[in-house]
Amino acid sequence: MNGADVLCDVLLANGVTVCFANPGTSEMHFVAALDRKPQMRCVLGLFEGVVTGAADGYARMTDRPAATLLHTGPGLANIHNARRALSPMINIVGDHASYHLALDAPLTSDIESLAAPMSNWVRRIESPADVAPAAEAAFRASLSPPGIATLILPADAAWGEAPMVSARKVELAQPTVDMGAVRKAAEAIRGTPGRVGIIVRGRAARTDALEIAGQISAAQDVRLFSEVLVARMERGRGRVAPTRIPYPIDAATALLSDIDVLILVGAKEPVAFFAYPGKPGRLVRDGCEVLSLAAHGEDLKAALEALRNELGIRSTQQLPVATGFSDEPVPRGKLTDDAIALSVARKLPANAIVCDEAVTSARRYFALSAFAAPHDYMMTTGGSIGEGIPLATGAAIACPDRKVINLEADGSGMYTVQGLWTQARENLDVVTIVFSNRTYAILHGEMKNVGVGAIGENARRMLDLDQPALDWVSLAKGMGVEAARADTCERFDALLDSALSRPGPFLIEAVI
Amino acid sequence: MNGADVLCDVLLANGVTVCFANPGTSEMHFVAALDRKPQMRCVLGLFEGVVTGAADGYARMTDRPAATLLHTGPGLANIHNARRALSPMINIVGDHASYHLALDAPLTSDIESLAAPMSNWVRRIESPADVAPAAEAAFRASLSPPGIATLILPADAAWGEAPMVSARKVELAQPTVDMGAVRKAAEAIRGTPGRVGIIVRGRAARTDALEIAGQISAAQDVRLFSEVLVARMERGRGRVAPTRIPYPIDAATALLSDIDVLILVGAKEPVAFFAYPGKPGRLVRDGCEVLSLAAHGEDLKAALEALRNELGIRSTQQLPVATGFSDEPVPRGKLTDDAIALSVARKLPANAIVCDEAVTSARRYFALSAFAAPHDYMMTTGGSIGEGIPLATGAAIACPDRKVINLEADGSGMYTVQGLWTQARENLDVVTIVFSNRTYAILHGEMKNVGVGAIGENARRMLDLDQPALDWVSLAKGMGVEAARADTCERFDALLDSALSRPGPFLIEAVI
Repeated sequence: MNGADVLCDVLLANGVTVCFANPGTSEMHFVAALDRKPQMRCVLGLFEGVVTGAADGYARMTDRPAATLLHTGPGLANIHNARRALSPMINIVGDHASYHLALDAPLTSDIESLAAPMSNWVRRIESPADVAPAAEAAFRASLSPPGIATLILPADAAWGEAPMVSARKVELAQPTVDMGAVRKAAEAIRGTPGRVGIIVRGRAARTDALEIAGQISAAQDVRLFSEVLVARMERGRGRVAPTRIPYPIDAATALLSDIDVLILVGAKEPVAFFAYPGKPGRLVRDGCEVLSLAAHGEDLKAALEALRNELGIRSTQQLPVATGFSDEPVPRGKLTDDAIALSVARKLPANAIVCDEAVTSARRYFALSAFAAPHDYMMTTGGSIGEGIPLATGAAIACPDRKVINLEADGSGMYTVQGLWTQARENLDVVTIVFSNRTYAILHGEMKNVGVGAIGENARRMLDLDQPALDWVSLAKGMGVEAARADTCERFDALLDSALSRPGPFLIEAVI
Repeated sequence: MNGADVLCDVLLANGVTVCFANPGTSEMHFVAALDRKPQMRCVLGLFEGVVTGAADGYARMTDRPAATLLHTGPGLANIHNARRALSPMINIVGDHASYHLALDAPLTSDIESLAAPMSNWVRRIESPADVAPAAEAAFRASLSPPGIATLILPADAAWGEAPMVSARKVELAQPTVDMGAVRKAAEAIRGTPGRVGIIVRGRAARTDALEIAGQISAAQDVRLFSEVLVARMERGRGRVAPTRIPYPIDAATALLSDIDVLILVGAKEPVAFFAYPGKPGRLVRDGCEVLSLAAHGEDLKAALEALRNELGIRSTQQLPVATGFSDEPVPRGKLTDDAIALSVARKLPANAIVCDEAVTSARRYFALSAFAAPHDYMMTTGGSIGEGIPLATGAAIACPDRKVINLEADGSGMYTVQGLWTQARENLDVVTIVFSNRTYAILHGEMKNVGVGAIGENARRMLDLDQPALDWVSLAKGMGVEAARADTCERFDALLDSALSRPGPFLIEAVI
């Protein structure tokens, strides 16, 4: 048994059964080992950004790492969003045989340096005997607390004879609750009535934890927030719906202006996405106290439970009932981004998964989603666009019985358009809705934000996607995904009905 | 005048007049500054790999840096091939305002660490006053010796008021010749008749330098080689044609087995692309002496001239005349990769540029190219596939009056397929020939090289690109590039004739 086999065995023993892969010439022994393990599902992406984005989507929906197989260094830089989503992931990056590195052959790159800024943990496997301990450590690193573990697999560690091991399940430490932090939060809530906010993230944004947070909010007049960029949140009718902190800085600071104590539950203190001349970087007002109830990696739900108990709130505490959008008239005629958001929210099948990388175009969707059928909602968390198509791909691999809707901006979608092919090959149940506004709309907004007035030819040619317009129906067809175009509300609704009623991937080019 | 304006002015004063761009939200001040400079040509790519690959193609054809505009860190990892091609390039990477970094906002990444393995030089601009000296240093670093210079532009350095400067042309040191190395090489050639090889690279692979190398070769029975992966070489009828060291390791070591002295001219000592169990890493035989006549950054042509003079060879020394392929019958019927190579070599217009990322499929082309019309030939130098389409794009921007032919593998092409849109928008004279074999053929070869026999389902699903087959005609059409498909030699020849006779981009899907 060689090192590559040991690596597969350790992954499988720990329930890592999906490998998103873009193999290259230096990973052949690992490919051969995967080939001997029919229990491992290998999903090919045509570019590394597709692979790592899909592993992110898989991890967000399962709370478990997928493995990725990347070819040497250059594929690593696209993990930025997954790292910001706190997704567990195990990247296996092939490298030259250790003794070959000194020759500086053409493919040689400094993988550790490339991996470090994108990973929470990096380790180079030293020898065939080091494969099992390194793989176990990578698995542990991916989950405690969840994050990106990158394992560099030199070819000689893969091909060399390894000691026989029987791969075993790694014991993970149970997440804990810091009762001191719970008491401090309770004290602040009691002492500052009406001026406390709670921000939830990660596991605190799931239905059960949200319900507890909602009870605290209802009983103690505490405001409930989510971060600007949501890694995953359970949304929809009957669920507690936190207010998302808005992206525009003035709206964000206004929302938080009367908060004296902000309590973080798995979240970080909210900050401005960018610095703007003369505007603040922190979003809370000066003097606002920021407390952590529980950090990423701690037991967020148990911490909320403990806080509820500490505040003497009963587990039967009633929640306010939110009202929905049923009264809004059905839009007609020329298709708009808001009409799409409303239509998706109305027609969403129960238990769907919505991936939102529509950037400016789906701005209405999040608010509407509180009243749609219950579903999971995910965004591009690091602001590095080009993750929507892969994210939807990974989510569909993770949850084969659920419909995935990908709200995709045209500019963002083109970064990893190759992911549509993987959806076709795996026959994934993904409906991609491309908001075809033929521009990087957010950049026009940021030009205004930094005080630039009229736009000239050079800027226009960098911010707009016309000349020629992208034909998404042809692009999808080229990768084996059925597709159609809509420029009216009626046509869009008909296409969405049809796409939702059939299995397999479909793409709607929504010209807005 | 703000820092962003100063940066543009310094670039323009030094003849950097093309900016390949994929701007993001943190680069708006620089976009606004570019917008005030109509002399700067801004070329949009839809993904950073397109941008950096195009800058590589531009640099290889002009020997000058283009600027690239990249959005924070993740776009940097695709520069691997350009670094290996020793191409000059100035990357401008936007970053947060310096005081905003400590807040760790979502887009924050460790740009220096990401940039370092892909760059020969990295500098973070400290302030608006630092822009001019930093930009001058970046320009110098990109050209002396040629390489990748990465300049990190914080938003506050871009928007802040900078001291008035009148941007000036930077004086670059003239490349030199090491006469000691020349004498040593001459001595070796005289002392080891018939067993000396010269490897040329970079400027030594241009017509004038090749002619001198050819004279030395003819007069002194010296063998002339090029590296496995050719950054750029002037090829074709009437030009001296070095033998390329083959990729397969056994063929490479056999070729060099009777060389006792190897003289490097801008090249590195050749090594195996990969380590294989039980095979050597160095390609020269044990005991072979390796000398450097001139290193990258020195005056390679002048060094060859000095060597010729030192050896007493006259500048009128005759060159052997190579014979061509005119006798080969024109292939008929089912299209093959070798038939495509022959057809391209036959029909190539004079002064064309050939970008070769067909990996295994164009294996015959390089040998044939010695007898085609005179042209420039370029490959993917770092083995990180996915550079062919951008490379052709950049070459076409650099040389608007020359036809560019991109020999593209289907697997490689899908990494940066977005580059076709840039070719359409800029109406570039690029004919893309996709070798559609629907597999990563090189990986099948490497599986055999590492001793793996029969291939199972998991490996097949990672190595093959069928199910579904990519429809390149639709893909091209989706990005505004005209395209057609050929599966016979006759149809391919007709399409190539037609593509070569018209301006603007065209794609031929060659099903082989």
